Amino acid sequence: MAPTNALYAQSGGVTSVINASACGVLQTARRHPDKIGKVYAGRNGIVRVLAEDLIDTSLESDADIAALEHTPSATFGSCRYKLGSILEHRAQYERMIDVFRAHDIGFFFYNGGGDSQDTAHKISQMGAALDYPMVSIGIPKTIDNDLPVTDCSPGFGSAAKYLATSLREAAFDVAAMSRTSSKVFALEVMGRHAGWMTAACALAAEREGDAPHILLLPEVVFDEGRFLAKVTEVLERHGYCVIALSEGLKQANGEFLAASGSEDAFGHKQLGGVAPLITSLISAKIGCKCHWAVPDLLQRSARHIASETDVRQAYAVGRAAVEFALAGRSAVMPAIRRLSDAPYRWDIVEAPLSEVANQEKLLPLEFISADGFGITEAARRYLAPLIVGESYPPFKNGLPDYVKLQNAAAPKRLTRAFAV
Amino acid sequence: MAPTNALYAQSGGVTSVINASACGVLQTARRHPDKIGKVYAGRNGIVRVLAEDLIDTSLESDADIAALEHTPSATFGSCRYKLGSILEHRAQYERMIDVFRAHDIGFFFYNGGGDSQDTAHKISQMGAALDYPMVSIGIPKTIDNDLPVTDCSPGFGSAAKYLATSLREAAFDVAAMSRTSSKVFALEVMGRHAGWMTAACALAAEREGDAPHILLLPEVVFDEGRFLAKVTEVLERHGYCVIALSEGLKQANGEFLAASGSEDAFGHKQLGGVAPLITSLISAKIGCKCHWAVPDLLQRSARHIASETDVRQAYAVGRAAVEFALAGRSAVMPAIRRLSDAPYRWDIVEAPLSEVANQEKLLPLEFISADGFGITEAARRYLAPLIVGESYPPFKNGLPDYVKLQNAAAPKRLTRAFAV
Repeated sequence: MAPTNALYAQSGGVTSVINASACGVLQTARRHPDKIGKVYAGRNGIVRVLAEDLIDTSLESDADIAALEHTPSATFGSCRYKLGSILEHRAQYERMIDVFRAHDIGFFFYNGGGDSQDTAHKISQMGAALDYPMVSIGIPKTIDNDLPVTDCSPGFGSAAKYLATSLREAAFDVAAMSRTSSKVFALEVMGRHAGWMTAACALAAEREGDAPHILLLPEVVFDEGRFLAKVTEVLERHGYCVIALSEGLKQANGEFLAASGSEDAFGHKQLGGVAPLITSLISAKIGCKCHWAVPDLLQRSARHIASETDVRQAYAVGRAAVEFALAGRSAVMPAIRRLSDAPYRWDIVEAPLSEVANQEKLLPLEFISADGFGITEAARRYLAPLIVGESYPPFKNGLPDYVKLQNAAAPKRLTRAFAV
Repeated sequence: MAPTNALYAQSGGVTSVINASACGVLQTARRHPDKIGKVYAGRNGIVRVLAEDLIDTSLESDADIAALEHTPSATFGSCRYKLGSILEHRAQYERMIDVFRAHDIGFFFYNGGGDSQDTAHKISQMGAALDYPMVSIGIPKTIDNDLPVTDCSPGFGSAAKYLATSLREAAFDVAAMSRTSSKVFALEVMGRHAGWMTAACALAAEREGDAPHILLLPEVVFDEGRFLAKVTEVLERHGYCVIALSEGLKQANGEFLAASGSEDAFGHKQLGGVAPLITSLISAKIGCKCHWAVPDLLQRSARHIASETDVRQAYAVGRAAVEFALAGRSAVMPAIRRLSDAPYRWDIVEAPLSEVANQEKLLPLEFISADGFGITEAARRYLAPLIVGESYPPFKNGLPDYVKLQNAAAPKRLTRAFAV
């Protein structure tokens, strides 16, 4: 019997190491030609699979596949798209089965966050419901680190390392300039609901008094009076104040601070930008010059300063996904299990997709300091090992040498088009 | 005769390699104990010298001085402060001479941009005017690359490498997400008047069609209609659009775009932020989702991704400053002279401070493409070698291991205080 083919797709906001997971999947599959035929990739995630827009990865060289390990972003394209329930969107799932059947796809790997694990779960159920035998495995990925069951999520460690490094560097800057120029610096961090990334900025501090002096976590309601008092106290004590704040900062009424109605010079509603808001507040109420930064996409694609630990884990979950599939497992996700903090040891275990999908793991209360403006020693023990190790990409002409795959389309086999 | 002492100070916005210049000064001075006694450092630039607030660098270990080579920001503190003319502010200069005389300072080294070269120049004139024999040497530094005479300015190459790397990484991100999410990304770059840093972003592109697709340089007046037409064209052609824009973007009336009156939710005048402005414009007029980033201080302190070429040049101008001083030269600045583009070769020559002070070197017209949205091949030939080579700092616990000096105060010898 000929080996069945596989389909791999990437989903949601990209990270600097999701391609390392792709590398793990593709290299492992290539080592089992007796069991896995071609690996197709979905162009731009699941949404284009419905359009039968598949990439034939067998046309990519081993060298290019290896280069994925050090290339950020989603090489096959990603999407923000959630499949509906099987009951209500049966036509969509029937179409999916048509595509799978036409290309003899027996293995499905979906690499993403909580929503994507939900999609992988639904597709595993689809096989049974529509009488098409197949294996569906989720692969974890999110800079937000908000997936349950797994100890951490690939993508987080590298974003955390980028943020803590950048904050440490900027803090040196503010400290040097504070006497005659800016005394406050605010760094805005991604993460709408979970404060993991903002918390990771605290790793920049080694000693008492080091920056960041204040964290504004999305788990803690923003209180203007308490915050300004804290800034004043830090300024008096250290002469400068460095703040890491979450883009998802909320007011007491539950509304995002960023959505609270600012307008720009063109008269348009201003999109995002909590850091400028917070520093304006400080300038007006305390009266000192401030700087702010919003690194935005830079923090989730900074492969040049990736965590080696993170890169290894990203590769490992990709490899494990294929191994799980070959062992006949389905509806599971490789999860990272922590065995010890120091020395840091971890392995890969199996997590049922039913337990992973649609859950959001917030920063636990015991990780947040009593005043809400920092993290605890327990949080530091958890976070510290995830940023350890450097994993530099190769450089050419002074810049990281990232690969772009050919991404050639596999010939379509279905005659009917499908409107998503 | 006992050797005379030296005073070194850092000025203006910091860079990721100004401490490499400090390292060049201090290591070279330590090799000439017969001619140079102690090297004092001004705490926070020239402004605290007037207060006789000097740091005794002889108390720092050789290892810590060596670590300055890989430590960003100004280790002795910096300032934004310009000395007045000798005629009008004679008391200030007399005080300076008092401090110099009290500490037997015969060599003055001032490390900064155009304003700082002016200060170094005035201090060289002060010696003659007030009958105090001394040597004053300027040392170039600015991420803006706007100093004249020198082919490039230490600090620029590393900021350029950071920006081109970050833009390339973010562009991979946008390309992957553009099908179902953001199609436009705008990166805001420092540089109020000169477009060197924004131009450097263009190095991220290797092939036709690569990002950045549009540069908005401060040398080119912003034209809303032409810009939106260009964005539309890029989106139709590539499916996504990456823009690098200068914080100093100007309207036809000469006003900064950033200062054009936006207010935030607290009702305060919004400080800076041209990227959010430009992306709001695109969202409103073209109607697609946009992302924007303002790395701000991160770009001038990102020592983790410094250019090796830049680090070497920063060190070389520091070393040359001391060598010039020992050769009896004064009122000069070590300048970088380009001998060839490829292979890139350079040496250090002497530039008179009178020619360097208070000049601003803008991007020449022949470096700007005909449509104003890009750079020419000549610009690329100039820029390319400046970002070449990596010079990673050591890492500890996953983060760059930067040094903080003790910065112990030298005992004061003057009885009279001085109000700046």
